[in-house]
Amino acid sequence: MHPDIQALIDQIGPPDHAAVARAGARQVQLTKPAGSLGDLEPLSIRLAGVLGSERPELRGAAVLVAAADHGVAAEGVSAYPAEVTQAMVLNLLADTPAGRGGAAVNALARSAGVEVYLMDAGVATELPPHPALYRAAVRRGSRNLRHEAAMTPAERDALILAGAALARGAIEAGADLIVPGELGIGNTTSAAALTARLLNLSPQAVTGRGTGVDDGRLAHKVAVVGDALARTPVTAPLDALAELGGFEIAAMLGMMLQAAALRRVVVLDGFVEGSAALVGAGLSPHLPDYLFAAGECAEVGHAAQLQALGLRPLFRLGLRLGEGTGGVLAVPLLRAAAASLREMQTFSEAGVPS
Amino acid sequence: MHPDIQALIDQIGPPDHAAVARAGARQVQLTKPAGSLGDLEPLSIRLAGVLGSERPELRGAAVLVAAADHGVAAEGVSAYPAEVTQAMVLNLLADTPAGRGGAAVNALARSAGVEVYLMDAGVATELPPHPALYRAAVRRGSRNLRHEAAMTPAERDALILAGAALARGAIEAGADLIVPGELGIGNTTSAAALTARLLNLSPQAVTGRGTGVDDGRLAHKVAVVGDALARTPVTAPLDALAELGGFEIAAMLGMMLQAAALRRVVVLDGFVEGSAALVGAGLSPHLPDYLFAAGECAEVGHAAQLQALGLRPLFRLGLRLGEGTGGVLAVPLLRAAAASLREMQTFSEAGVPS
Repeated sequence: MHPDIQALIDQIGPPDHAAVARAGARQVQLTKPAGSLGDLEPLSIRLAGVLGSERPELRGAAVLVAAADHGVAAEGVSAYPAEVTQAMVLNLLADTPAGRGGAAVNALARSAGVEVYLMDAGVATELPPHPALYRAAVRRGSRNLRHEAAMTPAERDALILAGAALARGAIEAGADLIVPGELGIGNTTSAAALTARLLNLSPQAVTGRGTGVDDGRLAHKVAVVGDALARTPVTAPLDALAELGGFEIAAMLGMMLQAAALRRVVVLDGFVEGSAALVGAGLSPHLPDYLFAAGECAEVGHAAQLQALGLRPLFRLGLRLGEGTGGVLAVPLLRAAAASLREMQTFSEAGVPS
Repeated sequence: MHPDIQALIDQIGPPDHAAVARAGARQVQLTKPAGSLGDLEPLSIRLAGVLGSERPELRGAAVLVAAADHGVAAEGVSAYPAEVTQAMVLNLLADTPAGRGGAAVNALARSAGVEVYLMDAGVATELPPHPALYRAAVRRGSRNLRHEAAMTPAERDALILAGAALARGAIEAGADLIVPGELGIGNTTSAAALTARLLNLSPQAVTGRGTGVDDGRLAHKVAVVGDALARTPVTAPLDALAELGGFEIAAMLGMMLQAAALRRVVVLDGFVEGSAALVGAGLSPHLPDYLFAAGECAEVGHAAQLQALGLRPLFRLGLRLGEGTGGVLAVPLLRAAAASLREMQTFSEAGVPS
């Protein structure tokens, strides 16, 4: 692997245990019955550990959407044609009456005060220049993972480092919280293959309907995943990423590694993001400490990913859109958890009998 | 009942069916696979019906916290002494480094951009004047519902109208969304009695641990609820409210009726709020159309309330604090649902193959 990636991995340390201890002590003194804020309480303590303060604050937040095409889309694994990837990139960049971007992630991000960054990680067609489009493609779409490695190690490393650079930029611009997001017709097939290999699960257990394929196409998709797994025996995380992954998955891995190295919060959206996180957890045992699961998405296999990462989802709203939309929805809940620990008075400060 | 209350009830009409139809047609044209935003999609359509637009917008939001004491607290049904109600009111008004209020609802509301209003609906002790405290008490705490009616019909009506007036003020100040919230030692006992009567359930099925009573005190609390139900046979909603309710429950009922009459969104927090909603649903068949359940709270009996009201909770985070905290957490999710319907482009607008 590229030495800059190893350097990133080496920078990822454990959370701040002293801050966790102070946060735990403060949490039980807040003006409420202990435990009455439910899941927000342990979340607030985890946030304290990541951000290194018993009064954690999430100032800026950013969703970084990586878009790429997949050679495996030629196998007919999606309900949509590959041209949809490009059209959706342009939709994310479109000028609309509400502001830049007419996709779901744009609307949800505006609503939650989250910045949207967009990366061309390898869309199959040449995209017109746009000042808000971060251009990181090294190839116009990955190779067909059913028949050959999706990318070379050099291509993989370039995208990991591009993802890291975009995350670093967002953090330097003020983001304390990063939501990796993705866009790419065919990418749940790639994520399923990667998840099956890294968790040693069957294709059936991790292959779902993506944007909405019917029963016949689902059976075909399972077979394609099975062929890819039979084609290559690699199990090391970065090898599996090159063989079975996608360019946006590599980019999201880079985002996660960089955010964790800089001690920022990473919100994990859906199944494709989860496959990048599994690669990352194989590279750094500390990475999952920086990850916060948003919702459990509708894609089969997501629950297995979250269990392997030791994460509990915040909600189950049945999302299966991608783009980082579920992650954006989780941002206000994490801000609320941080705010409760940071801003509530203790019993003694408030003079409330405890 | 007071004629102004009947007038409020009469103003509550059905949602705007034409807006619902337009919203449904628009929702399936948005640039995403149909259904991929999960529960946000039907929510967005319900919001369109309440707000009368296929591009619904939730501008301002307010949490209205009604505080009151309960005569039944003398029976030892809570883990906390009744003085905690007053102390928590002062905590909600306290100047802190983060702004006004050091309670959970203050921190969460600041985090979500929600205004906090506070009403003395009948706290047992005289509260010092404060410009941010809306004074509506007609009695310093309700009577002990185990042995007598909690309030007279005149007291009940005064609090319903006070709640309505506070909601009207918040709506005139810009709130499109109202979260009724409460504070009052002993109020889950009152809510349990009211819920048992209105849903014809046993005391065991609806009596929970509130802020956290142990097994022995829980058994005692069940017995107290049973005694109250045995004492009075009334079943009409407003009669049951006077016999078994509390002043903050009456106030929250008034908030809900007024918000629905003005076609605004009401977010339903926890079990005590749910008991007020059950009274309201008995007065106006349209009221539940204006209600949006936040989370399912930890209190036993909440699920039965939501089922009776035909509502699905947005999350299950194990909250059992009250103050409207769960409702405040739901506000960004509802804003996101509205934003998706309002701001996303359609396939034809975006030129995306559908």
